[in-house]
Amino acid sequence: MDLLPACDYIYLGDTARLPYGNKSASTIQTYTQQNLSFLKSQNVDLLVIACNTASAHFNDTSFLSLPVLTVIEPTALAALKISRTKRIGILATRATVNSHAYEKALMSKDDQVQVFSMASPLLVPFAEEGLAEDPLLNLISFRYVSPLVQDQIDCLILGCTHYPLLKKSLQKAAGNLSMIESGPAVAEKILKDFKLKLSDRPSTIEISTTDQIGNFQVWAQSILDPYTVKSWTQITV
Amino acid sequence: MDLLPACDYIYLGDTARLPYGNKSASTIQTYTQQNLSFLKSQNVDLLVIACNTASAHFNDTSFLSLPVLTVIEPTALAALKISRTKRIGILATRATVNSHAYEKALMSKDDQVQVFSMASPLLVPFAEEGLAEDPLLNLISFRYVSPLVQDQIDCLILGCTHYPLLKKSLQKAAGNLSMIESGPAVAEKILKDFKLKLSDRPSTIEISTTDQIGNFQVWAQSILDPYTVKSWTQITV
Repeated sequence: MDLLPACDYIYLGDTARLPYGNKSASTIQTYTQQNLSFLKSQNVDLLVIACNTASAHFNDTSFLSLPVLTVIEPTALAALKISRTKRIGILATRATVNSHAYEKALMSKDDQVQVFSMASPLLVPFAEEGLAEDPLLNLISFRYVSPLVQDQIDCLILGCTHYPLLKKSLQKAAGNLSMIESGPAVAEKILKDFKLKLSDRPSTIEISTTDQIGNFQVWAQSILDPYTVKSWTQITV
Repeated sequence: MDLLPACDYIYLGDTARLPYGNKSASTIQTYTQQNLSFLKSQNVDLLVIACNTASAHFNDTSFLSLPVLTVIEPTALAALKISRTKRIGILATRATVNSHAYEKALMSKDDQVQVFSMASPLLVPFAEEGLAEDPLLNLISFRYVSPLVQDQIDCLILGCTHYPLLKKSLQKAAGNLSMIESGPAVAEKILKDFKLKLSDRPSTIEISTTDQIGNFQVWAQSILDPYTVKSWTQITV
């Protein structure tokens, strides 16, 4: 929204089946295709898979005859731009780590890069519960991040869209390491590569979820502040 | 298995859509009905909803014209049998706590009982990750259990089937309080109330999951030890 304010956004959260991070590759792929089909039916110009786990398992680039952008390549490129020592760390879900998607993306751009991955399954519940300021989270952040610090990485990819919500705590464990988020990296790639029809009027945001909206609305609205949401709808994929 | 060794077991784990604990009542009910329909198609005599969250939201007792047992009533009765002060604590998922199913079951049997509930959303990930011995778990157990201890409960219902896997840590926080598990309570109710056709040969266990079996098999086998599983199958509900 900050970088691409002149677009209309249609967002789908698969809240009835989340989290994806511990599920199998084939289940993640099935769910992702169902979600993309719903979004395509909303008559969009561009699809963004704004979830690292789903991105890491998406390999059908001709899917739906619409451009589909994952978070992996733009985030990997952002890390390569920042890193000087080419020792790059990745915090991600178990499924993303097992897919090796980030390693492949990084090494296809620079075969000198060394990648250090850490599956971090206890982080998502803290983000989902809104416990970003919890002192226990600091202990968990330290557990996951300090082995990567000992591996002498010089930048850390936050390889799950939940983790930027926990950035303050992760940064304590990471010291002065640069942390790379998917959001700005993807927005910058869209700005650069796609000629989107930009509107003069303010952006709109329409949000759909597969479970009842419930607390998701409160939580999402607090993250989106000061932007407002035009509609909240429960749908079936 | 220990209390009902002469039965054949057909188990379904909805691993493609778990966890249920933060989902809405209507989604939990839809998933539970789909799961029960699959189990009925396996030609069973009795259905057990062996998940507290699904049990807490099940209210169609005539469903499928087969007896359906939830964990709520047997577990509530086991707690009432043990409790002297009638101050009973419940650790459960957010969805189970919000359903008030345990309060209703306890107070319908004894209107003098006082119920103290604690939603414990950070416990399930520790069980799913096999981190029962993790020192961080002790801090989380203490956080959830100590307010109930201060409420002077004299017994604690472990109101989620994951929690008995974390019993050692929860007991440290609960001191000498009695902890009530669903498993034995349900098995005893089946022994008492149902005339099941018991076989002479050893029991069999058939396990199905909605996601790929994967690590579930390793983890389930270690819990079931020394019993062995006849078949592992991925199914669609």
